[in-house]
Amino acid sequence: MSSAPTPARLLTREDCAALDAQPCRLANARSAFAAGAPGTIYLDGNSIGPMPADAPARLASLLESGWRRERRLGWNDPDWLDHPRSLGAAVAHLIGAAPEDLLVCDTTSVNLYKLLRLALAVASPRRVVVAERSVFPTNRYVAEGIVHAGFADLVSIDSVDQLTAVLTGNDVAAVTLSHVDYRSSVRLDMAELTALIHRHGATVVWDLSHSAGAVAVDLCGSDADFAVASGYKYLCGGPGAPALLYVHPRWQQAAWPAICGWMGHLDTFAFAPEYAPAPGVARHLAGTPAVIANAAWRAAADIWRGVDPQAMDLRHQSLSDTLVDLLDQQCGSLGIEVSSPREHRRRGGHVAVRLTAPAADVDALGEALIAAGVIVSTRKPDALRFGIHPLTTTHVELWEAVQRLRKILG
Amino acid sequence: MSSAPTPARLLTREDCAALDAQPCRLANARSAFAAGAPGTIYLDGNSIGPMPADAPARLASLLESGWRRERRLGWNDPDWLDHPRSLGAAVAHLIGAAPEDLLVCDTTSVNLYKLLRLALAVASPRRVVVAERSVFPTNRYVAEGIVHAGFADLVSIDSVDQLTAVLTGNDVAAVTLSHVDYRSSVRLDMAELTALIHRHGATVVWDLSHSAGAVAVDLCGSDADFAVASGYKYLCGGPGAPALLYVHPRWQQAAWPAICGWMGHLDTFAFAPEYAPAPGVARHLAGTPAVIANAAWRAAADIWRGVDPQAMDLRHQSLSDTLVDLLDQQCGSLGIEVSSPREHRRRGGHVAVRLTAPAADVDALGEALIAAGVIVSTRKPDALRFGIHPLTTTHVELWEAVQRLRKILG
Repeated sequence: MSSAPTPARLLTREDCAALDAQPCRLANARSAFAAGAPGTIYLDGNSIGPMPADAPARLASLLESGWRRERRLGWNDPDWLDHPRSLGAAVAHLIGAAPEDLLVCDTTSVNLYKLLRLALAVASPRRVVVAERSVFPTNRYVAEGIVHAGFADLVSIDSVDQLTAVLTGNDVAAVTLSHVDYRSSVRLDMAELTALIHRHGATVVWDLSHSAGAVAVDLCGSDADFAVASGYKYLCGGPGAPALLYVHPRWQQAAWPAICGWMGHLDTFAFAPEYAPAPGVARHLAGTPAVIANAAWRAAADIWRGVDPQAMDLRHQSLSDTLVDLLDQQCGSLGIEVSSPREHRRRGGHVAVRLTAPAADVDALGEALIAAGVIVSTRKPDALRFGIHPLTTTHVELWEAVQRLRKILG
Repeated sequence: MSSAPTPARLLTREDCAALDAQPCRLANARSAFAAGAPGTIYLDGNSIGPMPADAPARLASLLESGWRRERRLGWNDPDWLDHPRSLGAAVAHLIGAAPEDLLVCDTTSVNLYKLLRLALAVASPRRVVVAERSVFPTNRYVAEGIVHAGFADLVSIDSVDQLTAVLTGNDVAAVTLSHVDYRSSVRLDMAELTALIHRHGATVVWDLSHSAGAVAVDLCGSDADFAVASGYKYLCGGPGAPALLYVHPRWQQAAWPAICGWMGHLDTFAFAPEYAPAPGVARHLAGTPAVIANAAWRAAADIWRGVDPQAMDLRHQSLSDTLVDLLDQQCGSLGIEVSSPREHRRRGGHVAVRLTAPAADVDALGEALIAAGVIVSTRKPDALRFGIHPLTTTHVELWEAVQRLRKILG
């Protein structure tokens, strides 16, 4: 934010092409995705990730074999019931989780609910939940709902700088934090903040929706307690895809889940009359898996399984640093400025810019960019977001997007 | 159950063909569904309903237009966010609900959780939940989880005959009942039991998973408080489809939802920092809609919109009464008996039989039937289930299925 250090020389389209041509361990990944509309540049991985090329064939096959022909015999296909575990296992390395500690199920909101309730259960009698005021709304709403029901008290903070102050004393049970801010793309230091929260005897629920599948995340290395992430953003599970749910092993057996359902039972098909929680994270499964949605998710999971997270992070850094430079160089004098942090390790999946003129209309600029074939998104009051997908975005696309932006601003 | 009244004369295949040939207001419905494997008879509507013929084209179109080309602009498609309401509205008449009081979202288990919590909230300080011991397990597990968390006390009953006894006193907040038993297909009298429960100042949560889309259900006429139903059984939403959630208008504004998410906010895209519940049943939406799953669901919803529920119920009665007669006549002396009630209004979507020999293996019989191309299901200890779909099953199929069963038993 602020002070834009001009690089030694202006980046050219050829520079971008050269960066795209560099050897990269992710080279095959782009071809695993379907191309979008010709001429359109998709910078919206923060909203809906690109479609794996074989997602349509997988869904068509599921419908033809599983639904039309097999019908109820489809339940005998081990994949149908195992997807919540197998999809989680396929992407666990991207966020530094052990494969057996991660599920794909329900929605981010429902999973946040489960994990905040779990965090409160294991911290009893502590009952304070700390949440940021400016966080993505559903994260706050879930916490407010739990407070409203009488489970907890809420302490709101404007920034993590206030964490030490609110953690002092012994009543904080859990802190709920977005790893990356959905507007500014500010990325928090997961290891440092987790350690701070642990020093005060509390736990932390991380929302990775704007980092998982874009930049390096290290849940284990950070000793994080709980995490969720959207399945349909950078992770490419498909519009409205089931979400991630992570529980550190130390908490997996510590309490019953908030929502006890048959898929989280110790022995689902025993149809036992009494609930007994499954071992491990699986107890947080509740209802029947979303078989159709999971068939699409699996197309993405099979790509992610072969992706090296370090290569992903490096590629994202190269792309997003290039975008920051291009925005500075090409548009810095045209009334916009990069509002995201300039250091990659402080940034999440997208790069945000704001208009420098007071009361400038960021939504109108977003619409103009979309009309020019650059798919971006805006968030009030002032964020225009360029979501960068490490597996599909190219440096030349970023060059072209910035040229179109310059034309609009000029 | 027991005493099988033999009809005046034996039903023939020609009788069944004649029944199929009778004028019926549902005549076009069967052609709206894809045929299964040739020669296979699907009696598994209680597990996964048949696939609408255009479900594959709808999903392919969503993936091609919405995911591949539109990407995040798909969120501008009003259908994506409106599906939870529009799908509910399309099937509301089947269960006697007003279109605006029903949602399609999450899973049956999660929706049961929301509604039991709501039932407890509106009944406070009453805190007893009554549940059947023999109910489908997830229904009990959800209640047990709520009790475990300290929200409620649980009273278990073996049968609704015990309801009056447990309702006496003033501490029962809510009763959770399956409209139709998942094994025996016994259908409860919704109006009578709801009235009984109301007389004692409690509310009732009905699970319609084994009646909705099969037989007549009248939530409004019964003055029912709350209901859920599976979306993927008779309703044909597709494997693992989102589930139904119904709240009577008198309770819609009575409390905050248990899970407060952005889709249940008064103004989702205002990104307001504080939760304010949406009016009506919509506050029970939590996370992002399951866009891919909902595209399949919509294919079914568009069929159901044109289905007259009375014609559906009559057709189901004709089919299932025929099956009961055929089972009696063709197999009654071969070691099985119909264990479901003989009166259609006391039965749900399936007909169950049991083996009369002690310790006979119902699972082996089920496997043999499946090997013979009759797709059925079994449930321990003794239920073999024939699920009858009113829109696709034919009388001749039932004849043929019973011939195959007779061959196996003989």
